[in-house]
Amino acid sequence: MKTVNVGLIGAGTVGCGVIKVLTENSELIEKRSGVRIRLKKIADIDIKRKRPVQIPESLLTTNAWEIIEDTDIPIVIELVGGTTVAKDFVLGAIERGKHVVTANKALLALYGKEIFLAASKREVDVGFEASVGGGIPIIRAIREGYVANNILSLYGIINGTSNYILSKMTEEGREFNEVLKQAQAEGYAEADPSLDIDGVDAAHKLSILVMLSFGIFLDFSRIHVEGIRNITPLDISFANEFGYRIKLLAIAKSREGRIEARVHPTLVRKETPLADVSGVFNAIHVTGDAVGPTMLYGMGAGMMPTASAVVSDVVEIAKNITLGNSHSSLPRFYGGDISSSPIPMSEITTKYYLRFQVEDRPGVLAQIAGSLGKNNISIESVIQKGRKLEGGDVPVVIMTHEAREKDLLSALDEIDRFPVVKAKSVFIRIEEL
Amino acid sequence: MKTVNVGLIGAGTVGCGVIKVLTENSELIEKRSGVRIRLKKIADIDIKRKRPVQIPESLLTTNAWEIIEDTDIPIVIELVGGTTVAKDFVLGAIERGKHVVTANKALLALYGKEIFLAASKREVDVGFEASVGGGIPIIRAIREGYVANNILSLYGIINGTSNYILSKMTEEGREFNEVLKQAQAEGYAEADPSLDIDGVDAAHKLSILVMLSFGIFLDFSRIHVEGIRNITPLDISFANEFGYRIKLLAIAKSREGRIEARVHPTLVRKETPLADVSGVFNAIHVTGDAVGPTMLYGMGAGMMPTASAVVSDVVEIAKNITLGNSHSSLPRFYGGDISSSPIPMSEITTKYYLRFQVEDRPGVLAQIAGSLGKNNISIESVIQKGRKLEGGDVPVVIMTHEAREKDLLSALDEIDRFPVVKAKSVFIRIEEL
Repeated sequence: MKTVNVGLIGAGTVGCGVIKVLTENSELIEKRSGVRIRLKKIADIDIKRKRPVQIPESLLTTNAWEIIEDTDIPIVIELVGGTTVAKDFVLGAIERGKHVVTANKALLALYGKEIFLAASKREVDVGFEASVGGGIPIIRAIREGYVANNILSLYGIINGTSNYILSKMTEEGREFNEVLKQAQAEGYAEADPSLDIDGVDAAHKLSILVMLSFGIFLDFSRIHVEGIRNITPLDISFANEFGYRIKLLAIAKSREGRIEARVHPTLVRKETPLADVSGVFNAIHVTGDAVGPTMLYGMGAGMMPTASAVVSDVVEIAKNITLGNSHSSLPRFYGGDISSSPIPMSEITTKYYLRFQVEDRPGVLAQIAGSLGKNNISIESVIQKGRKLEGGDVPVVIMTHEAREKDLLSALDEIDRFPVVKAKSVFIRIEEL
Repeated sequence: MKTVNVGLIGAGTVGCGVIKVLTENSELIEKRSGVRIRLKKIADIDIKRKRPVQIPESLLTTNAWEIIEDTDIPIVIELVGGTTVAKDFVLGAIERGKHVVTANKALLALYGKEIFLAASKREVDVGFEASVGGGIPIIRAIREGYVANNILSLYGIINGTSNYILSKMTEEGREFNEVLKQAQAEGYAEADPSLDIDGVDAAHKLSILVMLSFGIFLDFSRIHVEGIRNITPLDISFANEFGYRIKLLAIAKSREGRIEARVHPTLVRKETPLADVSGVFNAIHVTGDAVGPTMLYGMGAGMMPTASAVVSDVVEIAKNITLGNSHSSLPRFYGGDISSSPIPMSEITTKYYLRFQVEDRPGVLAQIAGSLGKNNISIESVIQKGRKLEGGDVPVVIMTHEAREKDLLSALDEIDRFPVVKAKSVFIRIEEL
């Protein structure tokens, strides 16, 4: 049995999961892959901390470069996170001809092209299955399973924290802030939850999926990113009446040689499989021109699911090392003609859920409908109920047919200035999968 | 750009899909993989037939051996189906040092070990992503994505025809025979539907999934296989009242070093993601000890989805050929200690749905409950309604707690001999995912 040495940088939650898997399932991994993986060194800034796994002290170091510069370690696992030292570690390892496995979606979303090109030059591999969807093998699915497909669309529920909060709000009819606090207390949301609930984490992952699906490296700053802070139980409940659930979706589509890429709360029909993905679960719905609609579902985060993905990459690379195979899983940037800027939101066409807070008197709906019509937005259905809001106002909810976002924003701008309209209008995009 | 020649044996529905994908998406495949795939020869017994794709006549032959013996073709795609000539073709190609890609689940379920060992000896690869779940990349997911996991359980809806029929029966409350006829008329079921509706096709696929998940080659004749012919709208409706749907599941579990492997109609809770997999869709729910519960969903059959999977294997092998890489995706039979016979059904423990047709008079339930109790079967809930069946009988429906199948069969044997019991009792197994 050939042995391949591995160094681990970052022994936090996922790092400990990796140690656990490599320890407890080592025999299974050997039997399945024909390779023995040996964790030779583990670096962490805090080597005294209590951990959920036993680590022999002799393996531990506070100096990550001891691993990166160890000529006896061909594979470096980076689980530090962030985009500062992690970038140095990853590029440092690649420069020294080492293969890298990482779960770092922020790093890949911002510096992926640089990293992959460096790896390509040094003929080393970079495994990043763990960067999107935890243990869900979505990277392999897109890269290999759907290799023969033009990807038509991609919808991801890829942030567990947001999905957990929206699910709780939906099930229990509670307010965002209240549910967030509970999620924080229960460990489902970070003390600083903004990366998750503002959609940034989902956008990081989206840019990785776009890279694989369309062969381009997106300018991250140009991705439209909207989180879930403004979602209310009222909107969830109206959406429900129309047959929809509200999910934070990461969306990418190919349209006439250009790419739509956006993250925002979205109404999806209850019948679509994505609508039932609740709690901390993740799912990625991919439609290819040959394979048709597909969905991969699983736990999108956490110690063991993420470790499962990290180790899957380590095993693949270790096997290639022992077989003397060339690396072959780096993303290719073949989408040369496609702009690295997604289509601007103003040019997006979609259906919309609109909610207006208006004075309870005749003619209001006609005024709103008039403005929508003037802006080329046609109405599919309306709910206008006696349900009172603060100050005696009532909500009017409208579902539109497909419309251009630019037209919608013009209409809302006009409508929000009507004296009968008492609060900023709410719009949430709808996707019919 | 390196070119790899491919020969296709079998230009039926899926074969034409492969031709279509390789033709229409060739540029995309080249850009993604760096390899050009050239379809050099196509064999079919009928080369005159009208096909949904244009095939240059010069490529066509009626003699498959022209492909197998062509030293200029390193990859042979076998899409003939069946286990007679297909076996000769596959083994013949392997003997000549060719890589093989096949969608033939029956062949792999019955002769997989022989084929994989032959391939291993000749150091060639066998791709079979298309053999289970159409375009769903479940083979890669289990083999590579979950390589670090002990697979705890596996539940598959992997026969589209059965799922289509059960879905229609559920939605429309119609009888099996009626729906089958419609499915046949619409092309969703074969003229001879037995392989599909009797569970054999699902069992073929199950044995492939078991091979990958547990490293053993099952004795196919020992897999318990039950189809959907006996499912009635009445049972579907009662199951619904208890919060369940009825699905034809292929099930495998690891239990104390032994394997459960069985195919039968199963009650699954409506909340589980499997319950919502309807129509011709397939889904495979896999739980690993690290990754937790996962599910892959998509179109389990059809021209283009299956072609997508076939071509994914062709591309992988072609890449390895051009890179000079050793093959590495053959299943390993590492589960040496595990019996190739699944645990006998009599030793299975599960929950049961039971339906009795009884005379409408007092004391009947007590009699049935008594017999169940005597056989160590405890009752979770009961529905006894005034709903009349033919002859004035009424149905009694019981959901049990976990019980041994052996005990259940003893109880039913006794109960069926009670004079108040008017028809053979129905039992359907329940799985709580």
